[in-house]
Amino acid sequence: MDLLTVALDFADEWNIIFGQSHFIKTVEDLYETLITAGGLKFGLAFSEASQHRLVRHAGNDADAERMAVENLQKISAGHSFLIVLKKGFPIQVLNAIKDCPEVCRIFCATANPVEVVLGETELGRAVLGVVDGNSPLGVEGDEDIADRKKFLRTIGYKC
Amino acid sequence: MDLLTVALDFADEWNIIFGQSHFIKTVEDLYETLITAGGLKFGLAFSEASQHRLVRHAGNDADAERMAVENLQKISAGHSFLIVLKKGFPIQVLNAIKDCPEVCRIFCATANPVEVVLGETELGRAVLGVVDGNSPLGVEGDEDIADRKKFLRTIGYKC
Amino acid sequence: MDLLTVALDFADEWNIIFGQSHFIKTVEDLYETLITAGGLKFGLAFSEASQHRLVRHAGNDADAERMAVENLQKISAGHSFLIVLKKGFPIQVLNAIKDCPEVCRIFCATANPVEVVLGETELGRAVLGVVDGNSPLGVEGDEDIADRKKFLRTIGYKC
Amino acid sequence: MDLLTVALDFADEWNIIFGQSHFIKTVEDLYETLITAGGLKFGLAFSEASQHRLVRHAGNDADAERMAVENLQKISAGHSFLIVLKKGFPIQVLNAIKDCPEVCRIFCATANPVEVVLGETELGRAVLGVVDGNSPLGVEGDEDIADRKKFLRTIGYKC
Amino acid sequence: MDLLTVALDFADEWNIIFGQSHFIKTVEDLYETLITAGGLKFGLAFSEASQHRLVRHAGNDADAERMAVENLQKISAGHSFLIVLKKGFPIQVLNAIKDCPEVCRIFCATANPVEVVLGETELGRAVLGVVDGNSPLGVEGDEDIADRKKFLRTIGYKC
Amino acid sequence: MDLLTVALDFADEWNIIFGQSHFIKTVEDLYETLITAGGLKFGLAFSEASQHRLVRHAGNDADAERMAVENLQKISAGHSFLIVLKKGFPIQVLNAIKDCPEVCRIFCATANPVEVVLGETELGRAVLGVVDGNSPLGVEGDEDIADRKKFLRTIGYKC
Repeated sequence: MDLLTVALDFADEWNIIFGQSHFIKTVEDLYETLITAGGLKFGLAFSEASQHRLVRHAGNDADAERMAVENLQKISAGHSFLIVLKKGFPIQVLNAIKDCPEVCRIFCATANPVEVVLGETELGRAVLGVVDGNSPLGVEGDEDIADRKKFLRTIGYKC
Repeated sequence: MDLLTVALDFADEWNIIFGQSHFIKTVEDLYETLITAGGLKFGLAFSEASQHRLVRHAGNDADAERMAVENLQKISAGHSFLIVLKKGFPIQVLNAIKDCPEVCRIFCATANPVEVVLGETELGRAVLGVVDGNSPLGVEGDEDIADRKKFLRTIGYKC
Repeated sequence: MDLLTVALDFADEWNIIFGQSHFIKTVEDLYETLITAGGLKFGLAFSEASQHRLVRHAGNDADAERMAVENLQKISAGHSFLIVLKKGFPIQVLNAIKDCPEVCRIFCATANPVEVVLGETELGRAVLGVVDGNSPLGVEGDEDIADRKKFLRTIGYKC
Repeated sequence: MDLLTVALDFADEWNIIFGQSHFIKTVEDLYETLITAGGLKFGLAFSEASQHRLVRHAGNDADAERMAVENLQKISAGHSFLIVLKKGFPIQVLNAIKDCPEVCRIFCATANPVEVVLGETELGRAVLGVVDGNSPLGVEGDEDIADRKKFLRTIGYKC
Repeated sequence: MDLLTVALDFADEWNIIFGQSHFIKTVEDLYETLITAGGLKFGLAFSEASQHRLVRHAGNDADAERMAVENLQKISAGHSFLIVLKKGFPIQVLNAIKDCPEVCRIFCATANPVEVVLGETELGRAVLGVVDGNSPLGVEGDEDIADRKKFLRTIGYKC
Repeated sequence: MDLLTVALDFADEWNIIFGQSHFIKTVEDLYETLITAGGLKFGLAFSEASQHRLVRHAGNDADAERMAVENLQKISAGHSFLIVLKKGFPIQVLNAIKDCPEVCRIFCATANPVEVVLGETELGRAVLGVVDGNSPLGVEGDEDIADRKKFLRTIGYKC
C-alpha cells in the first residue's frame, strides 16, 4: 500500500463537508437535504465504486458542483462524497446529512485548508484521515474564554 | 507501528457494514436492531478489547455469523464490529445502526470488495480506513445522469 | 507525511470519547450535552484549527478538564475534541454527542488504553485511527455467550 | 365546535400509521421512506389543507393506497396523513417516519380497531385523539411477565 | 371541563410551529436551534406552568416575538410553545426542533389558518388538537399527481 | 363519546413522561433506555390493547412501578404508556425515549399536577390531551429574562 496526501482546492468563501456513503441514491438524497436547508449555494459529488465507476454529481451552483467533482477526482476513493457550500455553514446541515440513510460517516466539515491522507492499493484508495487546518498553538486562558463566549453571543449563536 | 491491509472475504450476494463501537452490549443491541428491520438474514461480530478479549457474535443465519467472525478475526482491531447481511441492503438499517447507543462510527457499508487498512502496535490494531471498491474512471455526463435517475425510479427507490 | 502514534494518558476510573467536530461553538454545546445527562463528572477540550488556534476547554471537574486538555495537546490535530468522564459511561451520552450539530464523527468511546495514529504534514495533523485496547484472543463459545448475557442482566442493562 | 368519532376501516392483515405533517412533499418523502424499508406493501395518503385541497396519495399496492385514501377522506383533517402497510410492521419504519422532515407527530401505529376523535369547526377538522384498541382488563403478574418475555424471544425480537 | 377553540392570529407571510415541551430551558434551546438554521426571522414563546408562570420568550425579530407571545397567551396551556418564523419554512428546522431535548411533541407546522382546540379545567388548559387549514375537497387524479411532482421539481425541492 | 378527565397522582419528587406507543416490546425497550441513562429510579407501565389486554410494567424501583401501573389504569387508554422517575429529570432521557422504535409520541414530560383529558367510546379510550400545570399569569419582562438566564447558569445547565 502506498500512502499519499491530496490537498483540496476550494475558494475562500466556501465550506466543505467530506464523508463516506454508499449507493448512487446518495446524490439525490444529499441534494434534497441541502436544498431543504434553504438559501445555500452548493455542489456535491459522489464516487461510484463499481459498475460504471463515475463521479456522480448534483447541485444548485455550477462553480460549486465543478469544485466538488474536481476535488473528489483528486481523492479517487470509492464511496466517498464531497459537498462544497456557501451562503451558509456546515452547522446548518450537518445533522441532516449525518441522518441521510446512505451516509456512513463524516470525515470533516470545515473552511480550513484540508489535506486528505489516502492509502492506495491495487484495488483502489482508502481515506485514512484529514488534516483539517493547523495544530493548536496553546491553551485558552480566562480572557480567551470570555472572548469566545462573547463572540458567540455577538454573532447571536448563543443566548 | 506497522501498516497492513486485510482483504475481507464474503460471498457475492452479501453486503457488509463495518464500524467501531464500545461495550459488549453492542452484540445484543445490533442483533435487535437488525431483526427489527424485518426479513434480513444476518450475522454480526464484535471484538471485545479487554478482559476476556473474545470475538462476540450473534445472528439469525449461521453462514453470515461465521463470515462475520472470520473476517473480524482477520481485522483484529479492538471495539470494531462487522455485520454481514443479505435479503436486504444496508440502506434499510444504516440509520438505526448509527443510532445504536454503543456505536461510535461506521467505516463503510458495501457489497464491493473491501480492504481494511490497519496500523499495528504492541498494544493492538487501529482501523485506519477502508478501500471500498474501485476508484472512479470518469465523470458522469448528461446521459449518465438521466440513466441514473431513471434507474432509481425503475427500481422504485425514488418517485 | 510522517506517521506517529500518541498514547493517551488518563486514570483508570475515567472513560473517554474522542471525535472530530468543527467550530468553537462545539465547546459550549458539548458541555451542555454532557451536563444534561445528569451526574457525570467531565472535562472536554477542542482544537481550534484557525485564527487563535487555541485548545478550547470546559467541564465540571478540574482534573477531567486538565486531562482532556493535556491529551488533546499531545494529539494536536485540528478540529478534534476529547471528552474525559467518570461517574457514568459513554453509553449514557454517546447518542446525544453524535447528534450535536457541530460533531462530524466519533473515533472511539472507551476506558481501554488508547493510542492515536496520526499523520503529520507541514499543514498539521490528521487522526488516522485509534488502537482501542487489545486484539481479540479467540471466539466466544456457548458458555461465554451464556456468561455475557447473564452479566448484562446482572448489571441490569438488559431485561 | 362539534365532536365526532370516525371508525377507520382496514382489513385484518394490515397495520396503520396515522400522523400530522405539513406540505405536499410529505407524499414523496413518506413513499421513499417506506420503500427503503424493503419488502413492505403499502399505500399512503395526505390531506392537502390549502389551495387545491386534494387528498394526495402514493404507494406500491393499489388496495393499500385505496384504503389509505378512503379512510383519510373520512377523517378529513388538514395536514393529517395515513399509512396502511402489510408484509411488515410499524416498528420497522416508525423511527424513519418520525425523522421525515415534514412530519410533526404520530397519533398511533397499530393493527387494532381505531376510532379517530375529531373536532369540527367552520374552518375544518382537528384530530383530538385516537381510540387505539381496547382498555386494559388487569395488571400482568409474574407468570404473565415470564410469558411476555418468552414470547418476544420466541419470535426472535429480543435475544 | 369546558371545550373552547382559539383562532391563532399571524400575518400571511409567517409560518408557525406549535408544540409541547417542558422546562424553561426550552426558550434558549429553541432559540439556538432556530438561529443555527441560518437566515430565519423568528420569535418564540413558552408557557411556564409552575412557580412564576410567565410566558417566556426570545427571538431575532420583534414582530415575530410579539406574535408568538400574544398567540400563546390566548392559548394559555401549560408547557406549550409557539414559534413564528419567516424567510424560510418549517421544513428547514422541524427535525432539529423535534430533536430538542425538552420538546415532547409538535402539534402542527403550518402557514394555514389555525384554530387550537382546548379543554379547560380548574387546574389549567390542555391542547386537544388543532384545525390546520381546511378539509380536503377531493382526491388527486393522474393529472394532479403529475402537477404535484412537477411543482416540487420546479421549486427545486426534488431532483 | 363521553369526555372525562383523570387527575394523575404521583408524589412531589417524581417526574412523569406520558406517551403513546405500540407493541408490548415497548416495556423492555423503555426499561433499557431508562437504565442506560444511569442513576435514575423509575417505573413504567404500558396498556396492551388487544389479546390479553394487561397493563404491562417494569422498573428498578417498586414504588415507581406501582405508581406507573395505578395511574395508567386510571387512564385506561390502549397503547398509552407512563414513566415515573426520580434522581434525575425527563430532559436526561426524553430524546432517547422519542427515538425508541415503538414510541409514537410524547404527550407530556413534567413534575406538575397533570389531568389527562380522555374520550370514551364503546371501543375504548382516547387520550385527547393533558393539562400540564397551570396557565400563565403574565409575560416575562427584562428582569425576568435576566433571572431566567442566571438561574440556568447557576444550576450549570447553560454555560
